[in-house]
Amino acid sequence: MNVSVFRKERFNAAHRLRNPEWSEETNNAVFGKCNNPNYHGHNYDLIVEVRGPIDPQTGYVIDMKILSDIIKYEVTERYDHRNLNLDVPEFKDLNPTAENIAVVIWNRLRSRLDTRYTLKIRLYETERNFVEYDGQ
Amino acid sequence: MNVSVFRKERFNAAHRLRNPEWSEETNNAVFGKCNNPNYHGHNYDLIVEVRGPIDPQTGYVIDMKILSDIIKYEVTERYDHRNLNLDVPEFKDLNPTAENIAVVIWNRLRSRLDTRYTLKIRLYETERNFVEYDGQ
Amino acid sequence: MNVSVFRKERFNAAHRLRNPEWSEETNNAVFGKCNNPNYHGHNYDLIVEVRGPIDPQTGYVIDMKILSDIIKYEVTERYDHRNLNLDVPEFKDLNPTAENIAVVIWNRLRSRLDTRYTLKIRLYETERNFVEYDGQ
Amino acid sequence: MNVSVFRKERFNAAHRLRNPEWSEETNNAVFGKCNNPNYHGHNYDLIVEVRGPIDPQTGYVIDMKILSDIIKYEVTERYDHRNLNLDVPEFKDLNPTAENIAVVIWNRLRSRLDTRYTLKIRLYETERNFVEYDGQ
Amino acid sequence: MNVSVFRKERFNAAHRLRNPEWSEETNNAVFGKCNNPNYHGHNYDLIVEVRGPIDPQTGYVIDMKILSDIIKYEVTERYDHRNLNLDVPEFKDLNPTAENIAVVIWNRLRSRLDTRYTLKIRLYETERNFVEYDGQ
Amino acid sequence: MNVSVFRKERFNAAHRLRNPEWSEETNNAVFGKCNNPNYHGHNYDLIVEVRGPIDPQTGYVIDMKILSDIIKYEVTERYDHRNLNLDVPEFKDLNPTAENIAVVIWNRLRSRLDTRYTLKIRLYETERNFVEYDGQ
Repeated sequence: MNVSVFRKERFNAAHRLRNPEWSEETNNAVFGKCNNPNYHGHNYDLIVEVRGPIDPQTGYVIDMKILSDIIKYEVTERYDHRNLNLDVPEFKDLNPTAENIAVVIWNRLRSRLDTRYTLKIRLYETERNFVEYDGQ
Repeated sequence: MNVSVFRKERFNAAHRLRNPEWSEETNNAVFGKCNNPNYHGHNYDLIVEVRGPIDPQTGYVIDMKILSDIIKYEVTERYDHRNLNLDVPEFKDLNPTAENIAVVIWNRLRSRLDTRYTLKIRLYETERNFVEYDGQ
Repeated sequence: MNVSVFRKERFNAAHRLRNPEWSEETNNAVFGKCNNPNYHGHNYDLIVEVRGPIDPQTGYVIDMKILSDIIKYEVTERYDHRNLNLDVPEFKDLNPTAENIAVVIWNRLRSRLDTRYTLKIRLYETERNFVEYDGQ
Repeated sequence: MNVSVFRKERFNAAHRLRNPEWSEETNNAVFGKCNNPNYHGHNYDLIVEVRGPIDPQTGYVIDMKILSDIIKYEVTERYDHRNLNLDVPEFKDLNPTAENIAVVIWNRLRSRLDTRYTLKIRLYETERNFVEYDGQ
Repeated sequence: MNVSVFRKERFNAAHRLRNPEWSEETNNAVFGKCNNPNYHGHNYDLIVEVRGPIDPQTGYVIDMKILSDIIKYEVTERYDHRNLNLDVPEFKDLNPTAENIAVVIWNRLRSRLDTRYTLKIRLYETERNFVEYDGQ
Repeated sequence: MNVSVFRKERFNAAHRLRNPEWSEETNNAVFGKCNNPNYHGHNYDLIVEVRGPIDPQTGYVIDMKILSDIIKYEVTERYDHRNLNLDVPEFKDLNPTAENIAVVIWNRLRSRLDTRYTLKIRLYETERNFVEYDGQ
């Protein structure tokens, strides 16, 4: 009997989309205004889904306080009010699209969770553009 | 050809988290302010997903009025403006965590739905903490 | 390594629910006020989920601008500010329930997307009533 | 000591914007797709604000159940799942723009409320277009 | 040149509506299920509006961190995960309707803010029922 | 008889808060992580309220298409996917706090609107922090 629990956290960050192997013409053609050299930014909403059995002692799948602390330590304290391209090492050589940010976050969180849990994350870049990743 | 239909309902309830086999010290360490002996409360949002084939006569998977009536009869009329620990028999001996409430609601609704439907529910305790259960 | 990307679009339309093979009595009994002969309407929210591998050159599963243009061409420009029963050919002989609209939209979008992508859509008729279809 | 209390209700309706004294060319130039002869529709959200003193016996400005019943009787039961142009007498000769709908609703509600209350309403035609009217 | 700044905070609490000078019959007739002797609860959303001139040195009307700390100290740490009737002294003899809670919160915050600011608060008991108070 | 009409638009931008006349120590003490030299960013939601009489010919206070075009020309095309400090001339010497951005936007829009209208704007920096300005 498995239940999914979800925790929503937020971070506000600047970024720029760019492939350094391409000319500026190609970068502008593909990424448009997302390639602004002075960066733009977003309020990112992150929803973390952890699925597993209910602990009969607590009635919890996982203590939300513990899950929230893991997300803060691995993600929000490292990304919030930062420039993803310049301040966050994992995007030094990786284009910070929503897709790539989601994969990086998933890997960071996966390493901190017991193997009895499955993990899926949803990342909103805006209310109209968002992504989901479950490691598969 | 299966389609999922979703219906959102709400109930407002008081509850308290506690394991009666534990000392107060352990209960406070695990459940913190959720163990307030005088209770606290939430606006719960419940989203019920019913999946099945479209009836070619109606164009419906299930009549939303019927689904809404089932949810009201089984859940909202029994939980709304109630104290889950004191007023709702199924939580007399079961800690009313979001996980446990979801499993109880799923079982109540499952018994009322035809076997051609699959059922999943999502229960929001707050905008930031929610759970999902599909019987598996 | 597959990621889902989601794009939300909107359209505002009039419709009426009715089975032309039934008497008015039966139609009223089944569809109630949704069978108003003068129509009523909704703000429909459409969320399109496209799942596939991340292109290592762009960091995108699919360019959201391209996905948005496909949705506009296939759905919103054809449905927005229209009467679904009278103005949209695919509902001339198909009851425009949320379920049927979702299947029609899925088929329109499926034909425009590369086979390496899987497709799921969610359609909100109201905040409380919505449907999901993934072609299975 | 005055407090404002707000109650949110909803109705889903079809409408068409048109000035019958104008040519079709002028109507199309001014109202565009909102002038579709077959109508389109919206999920309208209505927020009613009643301001007045707190009754020391109840702690209420006005009983929300009573306010909700007035809104239902005067507005939602008359507008919901209707065609505003064809089914609602007050728009037979009045263009059902959000502005005009708000003024009509305000007048209907005003006549039912004690003079010790002031009244303001907000009407959402979409999440991005809404209006407010307070009788002044 | 005055600007309003708004800060949103939340608290989850249990409460019960009741006039101790009335019979149970009258209380039930007026307050209905809100008079459940075992309490029910809500997720309260509180929006605090502070209006004043922009400080030319900071570009702030008030530092949001300071405003948030005042709200936490005066309101959320005292009300969150509490029973308003039993745990919060100001409601020992005051019916905790949304109106009365708003007036109490306004008075607590007013005493902590410089007189150059005006103060208004909005309190959501549910998404559909909310109140506003500005001290007048 | 005046009605307010509201139009919501969005822009996503990077910014940094800083007073160039202060030491870095003071800037960090006052602005904290908002003073990150590499910038951070937000999804800004802008709600523009225009109040005036209803034109009896159209039923409109102002054509929402015209209002939306003014907002796009004056605000969103100039701020969206930009770095407010580096790319937008009006913030070269003005700290881009939400308060200051709101005043600048209000002035830009005011100059484009007929004097028969009054103007108020609300700017959301996040869901929890927002500001309002009406020119007074």
